[in-house]
Amino acid sequence: MERPLKVVVIGGDAAGMSAASQVKRRIKSAEVIVVEKGRDVSYGACGMPYNIGYQADIDELVVLTADEFKTKRGIDVRLLSEAVGVDFNNRKVKVRSLASDREYELVYDKLFIGSGAEAFLPPIEGAANEGVFKLKVLDDARRIKAYIEDKKPKKAVLIGAGFINLELAENLKRLSMEVVILEKLDGILLNFEDEFSEVVKEELSRNGVELITGVDIEKIDGSLKVKTNKGEFEADFVNIAAGVKPNTDFLVGTPIELEKGAIVVDRYFRTNMESVYAGGDCALIYHRILNRNVYMPLGTNANKAGRIGGANMAGANEEFAGIVGTILFRIFDKGVAKTGLSLREAIDNGFDAFKTIIEAPTTAHGFPHQGKVKICLVAEKGSGRLLGGQIVGDSEGVWRIDILATALYSNLAIKDIQGLDLAYSPPFAPVWDPILVCANQAIKQVRK
Amino acid sequence: MERPLKVVVIGGDAAGMSAASQVKRRIKSAEVIVVEKGRDVSYGACGMPYNIGYQADIDELVVLTADEFKTKRGIDVRLLSEAVGVDFNNRKVKVRSLASDREYELVYDKLFIGSGAEAFLPPIEGAANEGVFKLKVLDDARRIKAYIEDKKPKKAVLIGAGFINLELAENLKRLSMEVVILEKLDGILLNFEDEFSEVVKEELSRNGVELITGVDIEKIDGSLKVKTNKGEFEADFVNIAAGVKPNTDFLVGTPIELEKGAIVVDRYFRTNMESVYAGGDCALIYHRILNRNVYMPLGTNANKAGRIGGANMAGANEEFAGIVGTILFRIFDKGVAKTGLSLREAIDNGFDAFKTIIEAPTTAHGFPHQGKVKICLVAEKGSGRLLGGQIVGDSEGVWRIDILATALYSNLAIKDIQGLDLAYSPPFAPVWDPILVCANQAIKQVRK
Repeated sequence: MERPLKVVVIGGDAAGMSAASQVKRRIKSAEVIVVEKGRDVSYGACGMPYNIGYQADIDELVVLTADEFKTKRGIDVRLLSEAVGVDFNNRKVKVRSLASDREYELVYDKLFIGSGAEAFLPPIEGAANEGVFKLKVLDDARRIKAYIEDKKPKKAVLIGAGFINLELAENLKRLSMEVVILEKLDGILLNFEDEFSEVVKEELSRNGVELITGVDIEKIDGSLKVKTNKGEFEADFVNIAAGVKPNTDFLVGTPIELEKGAIVVDRYFRTNMESVYAGGDCALIYHRILNRNVYMPLGTNANKAGRIGGANMAGANEEFAGIVGTILFRIFDKGVAKTGLSLREAIDNGFDAFKTIIEAPTTAHGFPHQGKVKICLVAEKGSGRLLGGQIVGDSEGVWRIDILATALYSNLAIKDIQGLDLAYSPPFAPVWDPILVCANQAIKQVRK
Repeated sequence: MERPLKVVVIGGDAAGMSAASQVKRRIKSAEVIVVEKGRDVSYGACGMPYNIGYQADIDELVVLTADEFKTKRGIDVRLLSEAVGVDFNNRKVKVRSLASDREYELVYDKLFIGSGAEAFLPPIEGAANEGVFKLKVLDDARRIKAYIEDKKPKKAVLIGAGFINLELAENLKRLSMEVVILEKLDGILLNFEDEFSEVVKEELSRNGVELITGVDIEKIDGSLKVKTNKGEFEADFVNIAAGVKPNTDFLVGTPIELEKGAIVVDRYFRTNMESVYAGGDCALIYHRILNRNVYMPLGTNANKAGRIGGANMAGANEEFAGIVGTILFRIFDKGVAKTGLSLREAIDNGFDAFKTIIEAPTTAHGFPHQGKVKICLVAEKGSGRLLGGQIVGDSEGVWRIDILATALYSNLAIKDIQGLDLAYSPPFAPVWDPILVCANQAIKQVRK
């Protein structure tokens, strides 16, 4: 009898559990062990700010528990189990049980590394004080919720103006807190056109969230007062979201190829090590428009990486089509979306590019409810090839980013976008959809 | 000095006014005359049911008035002026002024025919009674609104279960009327999969609209009682929407090519007559998936036909990419959308096709507001080429039809759709968007 395939997966969130599930689905006999250093697997991390704001049960974010993976899918999920090293030559993972503090080894035929990323904590004095949080894993959300319930804080200072703190700002306002966001850089959402980040700034202001940029944090004192170059901010709740870094410290010094800490993979999610795959927030991912790897740690990307990497571990030969860099978030009543490249990113990457920005209604002329969106198309001069798009505006209208994501995947030009047969119905879209309005405008610039 | 180009446009709605505007934009010196038999040009006809239901001012549907076209764009718009014949050999249009009942001729160098369609009125006894309406042009909406205000009707019978009467049903309920829909055929929305029209039937029922199919109307009596093979229905308001037919009676007997009454055009919107273009509800239009002309009278199609036909009249050489057959409407809280072909249409057109239907949530796992949509993908066996899609469900989720419309334009296969980098954000979409869920399911059927 043939020996069953031994698969080890490091990390039990989106990428890891997708990979594990794919292997088990394709090879029933495989022995799949997942080691996860936290207490949770497979949960919707992006939902955490809303779970806090809407005061929902934290367990609603859990898609499947470790037990369910065992009983329903036959996957041996080991919680509180941290991979502390890999011996690629002998195909062994060294695991530390955080409960017992003992170490043991797991032998693999195939290994998937989906160890994720962790919140980057800048060296701020007082960052470890009680009442100072980060929001990266489910236990962070549990801690924040318990603190809010217990202390009923009234004044939040959010350090960093990325998606997480923007979404958290909305949700803390939902809990009637005062919110100040302090950002180190001179602007926010720098990967968007200025006209678009302006809308977000206005929406924050309109909703009573104070945003201050160009802020150097000096310290957070014991009473949670945040001292900065732009004054002192009283707080009884602080969240730090200053970016993430790949969880790959345990791989440093091994022969696996890393780039700025992220694991280098090909379009099959293979690493440079034989039989070793990687994906999700710990790894790079192929970008279809740039035609090279980038670091873009997002849930969608992690799920796809796990799914395809897992299938390939099980013998498939699936090439990843690549991301186009689609992002979307809500800030109060506005949606903010991007796909592909901004004008600056396009130019920095060697494209001879231009941008066209329009504002247009999202429902038909004369329809009682009139929303508006601002749309930016970035395209190549001459060919008119679409390189990117951004949409900001009333949240019911920003879904149109998926039209542009699909157009980017398909390598469409502005001329093609003009020809799209988009849906028209008064409650949903005007007869000339805003995307078409923008394309009709952009076409004039293609041959300039 | 060169003689200015003389352009005549028959019909002043979407197609005609778009064509006229394109010519004037491209050739400032052109003399552009539009003859329109009605009292309005350029209005949002699809908004009429909502204008009635929300009791908005009827003028809100007007995009530009005839006067504005004259003063802002230099177009000579003649209202209440009906084209009654065309002498293609001598390039003359015979026009009857409906105000003065006089006839005169207009000579053209280029002619655009955008005469639209009119409501098809089945030969029902009593169809001309007071209180029996159709809803095709703005004057119809004016008459209905005046009648509703004056008579305050309580019981509506809507004859025909197409989009117009479905949208009208919702809006008459908004005005607290009882609504019964009588449909001649044995089902509704026959160009959708049965599972999808079922959802519409349930939504009508849930909102207290009675739908009866297989109904032959015998007569509408003087008190508006509607007598049928399925009983009598009391009413104080009746609307008949039993389809439309091209407004081309004035062309019968001329050498211009018609197919079932609709003008035959090529992908440049040229007719078989030299220097004569046509588009909109009076003409056929090129369908990209079927690779042939179809009759699909929709506002979006008319606008594109006018825009491209007009550009070509002014010397451009723009080939129309073709429609993919996208339609969308709302019925109470549900949206109903389609693009491309249904399974039956695909098979009838010679494709070896299959369909995959899934139901999936429209927001992230654990997000407080959970909507649902049902999605159908129709694709070709073997190649997996997408042939069509349908979406029905909570109205905030059906915009995804535009992803499929873009995919159809781009000739994507199921495999490609799996690879789309669609947006993910808890309030807007789950990490696996319903479109991806459906593609992940459909891929299993591609090679069966």
